[in-house]
Amino acid sequence: MADLTIDLNADLGEGFGRWRLTDDDALLSVVTSANVACGFHAGDPSTMRRVCELAAERGVRVGAQVSYRDLAGFGRRAMDVPPRELTDEIAYQIGALRVFARAAGADVAYVKPHGALYNRCVRDPAQAAAVVEGVLLAADGVPLPVLGLPGSRLHEAAGAAGLPVVSEGFADRAYTAAGTLVPRGEPGAVIDDPGTVVKRSLGLARDGSVTSIDGEPVQVAVRSLCVHGDTPGAADLARRVRAELAAAGVRVEPFA
Amino acid sequence: MADLTIDLNADLGEGFGRWRLTDDDALLSVVTSANVACGFHAGDPSTMRRVCELAAERGVRVGAQVSYRDLAGFGRRAMDVPPRELTDEIAYQIGALRVFARAAGADVAYVKPHGALYNRCVRDPAQAAAVVEGVLLAADGVPLPVLGLPGSRLHEAAGAAGLPVVSEGFADRAYTAAGTLVPRGEPGAVIDDPGTVVKRSLGLARDGSVTSIDGEPVQVAVRSLCVHGDTPGAADLARRVRAELAAAGVRVEPFA
Amino acid sequence: MADLTIDLNADLGEGFGRWRLTDDDALLSVVTSANVACGFHAGDPSTMRRVCELAAERGVRVGAQVSYRDLAGFGRRAMDVPPRELTDEIAYQIGALRVFARAAGADVAYVKPHGALYNRCVRDPAQAAAVVEGVLLAADGVPLPVLGLPGSRLHEAAGAAGLPVVSEGFADRAYTAAGTLVPRGEPGAVIDDPGTVVKRSLGLARDGSVTSIDGEPVQVAVRSLCVHGDTPGAADLARRVRAELAAAGVRVEPFA
Amino acid sequence: MADLTIDLNADLGEGFGRWRLTDDDALLSVVTSANVACGFHAGDPSTMRRVCELAAERGVRVGAQVSYRDLAGFGRRAMDVPPRELTDEIAYQIGALRVFARAAGADVAYVKPHGALYNRCVRDPAQAAAVVEGVLLAADGVPLPVLGLPGSRLHEAAGAAGLPVVSEGFADRAYTAAGTLVPRGEPGAVIDDPGTVVKRSLGLARDGSVTSIDGEPVQVAVRSLCVHGDTPGAADLARRVRAELAAAGVRVEPFA
Repeated sequence: MADLTIDLNADLGEGFGRWRLTDDDALLSVVTSANVACGFHAGDPSTMRRVCELAAERGVRVGAQVSYRDLAGFGRRAMDVPPRELTDEIAYQIGALRVFARAAGADVAYVKPHGALYNRCVRDPAQAAAVVEGVLLAADGVPLPVLGLPGSRLHEAAGAAGLPVVSEGFADRAYTAAGTLVPRGEPGAVIDDPGTVVKRSLGLARDGSVTSIDGEPVQVAVRSLCVHGDTPGAADLARRVRAELAAAGVRVEPFA
Repeated sequence: MADLTIDLNADLGEGFGRWRLTDDDALLSVVTSANVACGFHAGDPSTMRRVCELAAERGVRVGAQVSYRDLAGFGRRAMDVPPRELTDEIAYQIGALRVFARAAGADVAYVKPHGALYNRCVRDPAQAAAVVEGVLLAADGVPLPVLGLPGSRLHEAAGAAGLPVVSEGFADRAYTAAGTLVPRGEPGAVIDDPGTVVKRSLGLARDGSVTSIDGEPVQVAVRSLCVHGDTPGAADLARRVRAELAAAGVRVEPFA
Repeated sequence: MADLTIDLNADLGEGFGRWRLTDDDALLSVVTSANVACGFHAGDPSTMRRVCELAAERGVRVGAQVSYRDLAGFGRRAMDVPPRELTDEIAYQIGALRVFARAAGADVAYVKPHGALYNRCVRDPAQAAAVVEGVLLAADGVPLPVLGLPGSRLHEAAGAAGLPVVSEGFADRAYTAAGTLVPRGEPGAVIDDPGTVVKRSLGLARDGSVTSIDGEPVQVAVRSLCVHGDTPGAADLARRVRAELAAAGVRVEPFA
Repeated sequence: MADLTIDLNADLGEGFGRWRLTDDDALLSVVTSANVACGFHAGDPSTMRRVCELAAERGVRVGAQVSYRDLAGFGRRAMDVPPRELTDEIAYQIGALRVFARAAGADVAYVKPHGALYNRCVRDPAQAAAVVEGVLLAADGVPLPVLGLPGSRLHEAAGAAGLPVVSEGFADRAYTAAGTLVPRGEPGAVIDDPGTVVKRSLGLARDGSVTSIDGEPVQVAVRSLCVHGDTPGAADLARRVRAELAAAGVRVEPFA
């Protein structure tokens, strides 16, 4: 029972200029890790600064949510970026965010790819390696942990490079019997019912287990749970997940 | 004679993606300070990295050439950016460049505004203060010197904030009798003749003096000379300036 | 009483990619003219198309809401764009919108500058002339009317070029005794109270008169009223304005 | 021998703001069709206007060189853009260019995808169909011909939609025995020797035949030859190709 702890992470700071998307203030009262958009799919400098300041104030960890350069597509369109360029774009984003994290008295504590880059790094070893290369390039003396799916190419590449990896689970996504995510777009891939999401959160955090889309329990190693921040009611659901985890004796705290 | 030294700086890395502008390789063999574009008016991550690596290898100092966010206008169009946003944009750019400077074994050693922002910060105290605020925000423990025109609002604001200031001169620009620059667009504002540029470089570096547009000598305090890098023959002219300075007993080296 | 008609216009399609701002669907049930963002301060191609289709379907006129190129600042930052470049940027935006308007069976019927460009064109004759030049360049055989403030440099330039001008009024903005707008930022510049906005709408539409910030009535020629679309409750307020205008015998219909 | 004519096309206007790439002036004296960049991978409004004016003056046909939205990558990175969005982006670009073509007294006369989009539309039926859909959306009464590789999905989709197709050949690219292009990156894919390029131009234009990478002649239907404009010496080579074609009795003129 020594390890009955879980991290809660959310994508934050996903506005741009005049536009807002995520309820940053509310979610920063719930999560323990903030994946802050760095300007490539969302996130202008002033938003990045504000989220970092609020996160630092509340003891929430700051992570760099790195993305393809694609404001128009919100980073959701896979792009064949040559590995060397991708590496440099990742490092650029981490460096930009670090300024605001440090100015707020904190630091960038981990890296998580966003959207299409996240999905691509599950299976594409070249892009996964390029991302890891970018994390190493931006190390500034302290190698950063990489948040991602257990078994992903991203985690393989990070592990091979000596970077810590943090396994992430999704209570609102269906899993296959093999413990991988059912692709968005397939029937049943996304789970909308709040009660089910809460129940699956508990299962993932406490038991490392979730019911697969075939109805069978499947083991999934999870050190951090991703809660979504870009839908109405997102903060309420996240708050409820956190409360039920606490009630079940799971400590919600940043990953070590 | 203890202080007969001068710094040579040039704007470098001013390509973007497929486009090239400055002859970075050649100029990095001549100058002692490289004003590296940070992505807002020019400068993609891979170019930033390459320039930083080359600069570090050759002992050239790396500076952040910060700009308005304006790729389409190359940062040459004055913009009424609210001070707080400008501050955050400056910090963002410095942070992004720092990653590549440090990864190359160097660091960002100073800040110089580009184009329209440079011009605006000569006279506009609010934007000058916002830039200085951004430099402070991005300090990461080491306040960075600010390169600019002597007497500019930028230098006033930097001095008031306790930042070191470095005075810059232009051998290819006409000066008024008051020691300010004749605005581009006015007749005689830009000096094209290489021989004249070389001669004025010597005057500025050795004597702190230049012939004004009225024909009278005018004193101008100059710790760094800006040589241009975006025209054909730029590197040749810079090389010649450097050689003549050396021949005249002026040591070309980075400002302290 | 022959002319007791008024046009209602609103800025629409001001999302970008993943981000939404204006309640396009609701407002297209109220207004008679839609100022559609063309991609420079907001407005991606799919949003432009959707707004054009909906506008055409409901008989709402489509106008090009042209802007400085400034997604990060939502077109709200004045920029010193050289007139020739500004002209070409205006034409570009009109052309892009025209594709979607025509594909929907309608056409671009007028032009209205957005944000900082709108404000600048009130007083800056060079930029006003550049905008008008862009409208002429994009004419494609039919000179487009220009929507703007009566007495503005924009209307002067448009009139001089033979373009029709349409005078616009703002029920939620304070007017000076001279009939100009009180600048945003000054106390009392923006009127929030819905009842007052409705009352001023009536005054402007029916009587061509509004109470100035000094408490005196001031005559303002208005052929179109701008209702705002980017605040919660915007559509409700617009609907109420329209209903009260109708109740007062003012026909709400597109300008001729 | 009635049909011994060939069109010469080149990618033009591929600068952006301060950056230049293609030697537009020189090439517009050689080619008969100008593929003008429309702002998504390159091409600012003023460049588009200038190229259109020069093309119109010299009787060169104007085509819309449409691309993924990717200035940083020059449109050379495949992107999984959803078909509907791609359609709308294509239409947007065509409409923007049309303004400048018409203002110059010409019109957009055809469409050619650029870079990664071109390559993807060879094999990807969904993206090819989306591009064709965009061309149809932008028709404005006159369906535009689509320039592309014979046998490509793009030509299939265009043909199915009733759009004219124009087959394009590349004298500086190797062909497989099946008449398809050897992918860039494979050995021998690009032919640098000017003499060989000239000879292959003749073969393609006069005989519809070229020597494949296996050394065997292969038939390739070609109505337009693409000459490259972004390398030093590009205009000279294009001029030589044109002269030799003329000497061999092939009329160089726009496709019908």
